Amino acid sequence: MSTGESTASSRNATSATSAGVVEVPRGLKGVVVTETGIGDVRGSEGFYHYRQYSAVDLATRRPVEDAWRLLIDGALPASASQRQAFADEVRPLRAIPAATAAVAPAIAQAAGQPLNGFRSALSMAAEEHGCRPVYDLTPAQRRADALFAAAVTPTILTALHRLRAGHDPVSPRDDLDYAANYLWMLTGQEPAGQHARAIRRYLISTIDHGFNASTFTARVIASTGADMGACITGAIGALSGPLHGGAPSRALDLLTEIGEASRARAVIEDKVTRGERIMGFGHAVYTTTDPRSEMLKETALDLGGPLAELAVAVEQTVVDVLAELKPGRHLYANVEYYAGVVMALCGVPPEMFTPTFASSRVIGWSANVLEQAGDPKIIRPSARYAGPPPPQPVPDLS
Amino acid sequence: MSTGESTASSRNATSATSAGVVEVPRGLKGVVVTETGIGDVRGSEGFYHYRQYSAVDLATRRPVEDAWRLLIDGALPASASQRQAFADEVRPLRAIPAATAAVAPAIAQAAGQPLNGFRSALSMAAEEHGCRPVYDLTPAQRRADALFAAAVTPTILTALHRLRAGHDPVSPRDDLDYAANYLWMLTGQEPAGQHARAIRRYLISTIDHGFNASTFTARVIASTGADMGACITGAIGALSGPLHGGAPSRALDLLTEIGEASRARAVIEDKVTRGERIMGFGHAVYTTTDPRSEMLKETALDLGGPLAELAVAVEQTVVDVLAELKPGRHLYANVEYYAGVVMALCGVPPEMFTPTFASSRVIGWSANVLEQAGDPKIIRPSARYAGPPPPQPVPDLS
Repeated sequence: MSTGESTASSRNATSATSAGVVEVPRGLKGVVVTETGIGDVRGSEGFYHYRQYSAVDLATRRPVEDAWRLLIDGALPASASQRQAFADEVRPLRAIPAATAAVAPAIAQAAGQPLNGFRSALSMAAEEHGCRPVYDLTPAQRRADALFAAAVTPTILTALHRLRAGHDPVSPRDDLDYAANYLWMLTGQEPAGQHARAIRRYLISTIDHGFNASTFTARVIASTGADMGACITGAIGALSGPLHGGAPSRALDLLTEIGEASRARAVIEDKVTRGERIMGFGHAVYTTTDPRSEMLKETALDLGGPLAELAVAVEQTVVDVLAELKPGRHLYANVEYYAGVVMALCGVPPEMFTPTFASSRVIGWSANVLEQAGDPKIIRPSARYAGPPPPQPVPDLS
Repeated sequence: MSTGESTASSRNATSATSAGVVEVPRGLKGVVVTETGIGDVRGSEGFYHYRQYSAVDLATRRPVEDAWRLLIDGALPASASQRQAFADEVRPLRAIPAATAAVAPAIAQAAGQPLNGFRSALSMAAEEHGCRPVYDLTPAQRRADALFAAAVTPTILTALHRLRAGHDPVSPRDDLDYAANYLWMLTGQEPAGQHARAIRRYLISTIDHGFNASTFTARVIASTGADMGACITGAIGALSGPLHGGAPSRALDLLTEIGEASRARAVIEDKVTRGERIMGFGHAVYTTTDPRSEMLKETALDLGGPLAELAVAVEQTVVDVLAELKPGRHLYANVEYYAGVVMALCGVPPEMFTPTFASSRVIGWSANVLEQAGDPKIIRPSARYAGPPPPQPVPDLS
């Protein structure tokens, strides 16, 4: 095993046994493995973008379908008819294929975690749909598989959720856009306009976010020429890791624990003093405010009510307490903090917070698979053997 | 997208926007991402090993369970009672969990490719079994999930195969070892001793083979803290890619096409002249003979019969023709060439060649997941944004 001692300073070739060996920092941190035209995160600027547009601007000004088209086809729809054409194309792809739908109740029952049930169901749905190895397909065929994966995802996620709760799945509605239809399939009720707009903002803001572990997983699998289902299934697995997908419900748990603003300082001081981590604060990439959190805070305040007000008060208290007790740390609310508040205000139950995050992220993963498939070269790094030297004779069993 | 121009000479930091940025060759070729104690491939020596032992020596001298224990626990059993203890431990883990078994017929029917059905079924089985995030577990609990994943795999693969063919699955037998039980569950007949020994050699020889794309995928997913099911499901997806898992049946197709040794030269010369690739020859890592091919050739000749003799004659013809028509290429038979012959002689149908390969490879993947889980650091590389510069204003829809 790596002892964790590998650093940027040890990146030069050190092995004489293999020409061109390159050493890199542990966890590939800062290692540029490809170029991308999909987007980027500028952590020190508190800015991230999808292609040439601010993701926050897209989230506040466009429906999910426009951002989806931007990621997959490289351009926003330029006219109402282009928008309509894309909507018409993805609408029929939302239905869960029949055999997968038939076993969805069993998958829902067997799943301890909603994301893991999604992993099994998406894997089967993609295969039943007929997703094929990306290198065997034309770009148009690959694109069709990408649209299918992202289109069927909200239907699968909401169906599994309802089945677990003992309810029948709700079929997608042709007259609702992605965001409104998501809440419709989740709750079985047509959402209020303000809820559909709020969840739309959340969904768009989480479509993509740099070269994270699940996106990289999707691209490694794609590099072998595997099909879209294989790539997305692997990415779901990576997202399910606690170090990656996080748990947006934990920040909401904090608000529930505090209950009212007047108790905030005492609870937070106690946690910080005891060395507990305050969930929903701090980010590995953003060294300033998280732009997603800023937008979702505004969205929460637009929705209004006691939870939104409590969240704002607690955020300020956390910042104040950390400044007093942990000077120099500069921790800001991250996307998890207000995401939970916005989703709760829109009627999304806490166990669906991470799946809702996964729902839109499939759009980003599938766009990354398409980009990777345009560069047919397998991703296959090396490891240095550091065990006892071979060959030792295989002993006889005594 | 990468243009493919990145080479080892451009590996130094070139970006001023981010401190410590490291550029690496395309596809991470030659990039050492970790240390491992599991094994290695020495391509120029025609040698590979599992821990301190030659993999070929293990394959010819030990049962699958011993190699499995070596990879998971780090040591061969040193006594008959240690061997028995391991067998007793993995035996009950071979049963497919009930809900997954109930939907296996639907998964089998929906699957275009056996490996893709395996992907869905293993995903569900691991979740039903209760595999949990690796960083949340003790080493002993993680090990238990690793044993489950590899133990249930042959049962799933053979069940899906039989269901697709309209037969009932065959339950594992307690009195047969891994290799004999594999053929038993596949065919429903107790295998001859020579077939069990031959397939044992093949299975052990394919447990692990350096830091390939599926192994790397399993480790990237594990690095997020995800559960064993997520890691293995992703690795299956990567193996399903045509650039990775290959197609051992293609080499057998060549032998079928040639039919008898006297036709070999004409068929091969024709193919080489027309620029066709001869399947089963050449390897990305071995620049000399493939040690797996050498061992499996011997195994095929031990089994004997016209197919084995034809294979040896065709191999010599291919080497001769390539030496005449493509001097300097030095292509040798790879693992695929004799693997197909051995599996066919043992009664494994061609559509099960790649799944049989996957069966033993799960042992290697799960060992790699355990190793990765001992080093809790997320694998998260970077990409360089190379699209139009942001932020451009989001236009109104005209």
